[in-house]
Amino acid sequence: MKVLLNDEILERNEAKVDIEDRGYQFGDGVYEVVNIYDGVPFTLKEHIARLYRSAKEIGILLNEQPEQLCNRLLELIKANNMTNGGLYLQISRGVFNRTHHYDQTLTPQLVAYPLPYKSVQDAQTNGVEAITAEDLRWLRCDIKSLNLLYNIMVKQKASEAGAFESILIRDGIVTEGSSSNIFIVKDGILRTHPANNLILNGITRRKLLEIMDANGWDYKIQPFHKEELMEADEVFLTSTTSEVMPIIKIDGVTFSQAKPGPYTSKFQAAFREAVKSETKTTTEKA
Amino acid sequence: MKVLLNDEILERNEAKVDIEDRGYQFGDGVYEVVNIYDGVPFTLKEHIARLYRSAKEIGILLNEQPEQLCNRLLELIKANNMTNGGLYLQISRGVFNRTHHYDQTLTPQLVAYPLPYKSVQDAQTNGVEAITAEDLRWLRCDIKSLNLLYNIMVKQKASEAGAFESILIRDGIVTEGSSSNIFIVKDGILRTHPANNLILNGITRRKLLEIMDANGWDYKIQPFHKEELMEADEVFLTSTTSEVMPIIKIDGVTFSQAKPGPYTSKFQAAFREAVKSETKTTTEKA
Repeated sequence: MKVLLNDEILERNEAKVDIEDRGYQFGDGVYEVVNIYDGVPFTLKEHIARLYRSAKEIGILLNEQPEQLCNRLLELIKANNMTNGGLYLQISRGVFNRTHHYDQTLTPQLVAYPLPYKSVQDAQTNGVEAITAEDLRWLRCDIKSLNLLYNIMVKQKASEAGAFESILIRDGIVTEGSSSNIFIVKDGILRTHPANNLILNGITRRKLLEIMDANGWDYKIQPFHKEELMEADEVFLTSTTSEVMPIIKIDGVTFSQAKPGPYTSKFQAAFREAVKSETKTTTEKA
Repeated sequence: MKVLLNDEILERNEAKVDIEDRGYQFGDGVYEVVNIYDGVPFTLKEHIARLYRSAKEIGILLNEQPEQLCNRLLELIKANNMTNGGLYLQISRGVFNRTHHYDQTLTPQLVAYPLPYKSVQDAQTNGVEAITAEDLRWLRCDIKSLNLLYNIMVKQKASEAGAFESILIRDGIVTEGSSSNIFIVKDGILRTHPANNLILNGITRRKLLEIMDANGWDYKIQPFHKEELMEADEVFLTSTTSEVMPIIKIDGVTFSQAKPGPYTSKFQAAFREAVKSETKTTTEKA
């Protein structure tokens, strides 16, 4: 496997970082995961735009143009002969003597490489289980940063309970999953949390809402309580690697007769169609 | 400079970590900074006990006994001929394919090395300035983890304002500094926030309270509002590297006539005395 480390493409075992990389000592950096379909990255521009936004929010200034970075990632995809799977990339603030405050002249450190492909087809067909957990995270969840400790703690909790995801609840309100956005369907209306400081505005979330708009399908961007979650007709999550993923059980309670509901299946198919169409167009363009 | 990396003592430039060290990708680890006085670490056992507690809280299981780790750190101090300065150490969960959930069998990764010595004597004599900032951190600030993004953001804000520290306010209540605990003195009574999930229970904070107890000096462990902070007779912060540090200005407002107040000076002297006595005892024992 080849890894992009700053300006070099290296073999996996050569890719090491300094102990005083601020990413290592403070989680001082931002990241993205882009899904690759038949060698073509899906919504790459949107991911990179979000990466730049996250970086800006924490005061990391990137000199390289987004388009340039996109091109370098395309080279990495080629160098790895990637067909399917996730492309991981992170940018940390740089390497510096360990102090909380930093120098604005630090050189940001980039790492990018392919994640091993894991099929989610079975899970999408059969649905997955989730548990609920308290949302104890910071109040800037809109920044996709490397400070993921609470996210991994609750993902681990889900994993140990035999579940796929933890659904986070803050002050009684469903915010999002540990690495996904959460949607409910009640009486035919889709509902999800507003994209404010309490959630990460997922690229898959945005894409699905675009599809809803394009089709004239009803939805509400409105917070909902845990009680409303538990009384929903259908529940699903979205994420880059999971796409539209039906949730059929939460805290042991079964939803939509333990199989993906009709709305979820419709959205899933529409999302798949969008992926197909957009990755095809990109290929033809290239 | 020599660095302790797991079981090896290496030269600084040889100390590299893997790109999939979970410390680098998730901030999935814990840390401590121990102060060294004339070659002797102060409250080393207390720091290591807190490190083990933090690790346990996030599910990192350390096989090595705390005493063994202490001995290895003493060797590192010797190998560097350290006289004064901070000893930094961090332990991450281990190296693993990037997924939020983890395998319990991962090998934790240890990094430890000396931080350059910076004298705080002038600052202690003259006092420092602070600003206030909103406390947006997660709700497990009792864990000394590598998820320090918000801490560095507000420390940077202080630094850019020409101040030494940001004092964090959550729901109107003063919690702590970005890398320190905050104390006020009003009508001769010392007051500080309780050691709950909203603050890190500083070793210097604990040591100072022990000294208060030993001397029969009055204090209250009780949250206080920003208004009470601004109306205090004296304000100071404590941290491993700052010890007892007078704050003489907050958001431009001057305290105790722009010089360290009498109580702060008394506590400062008593803390210095404790350091002297304890590091001397340790030396004689060794």
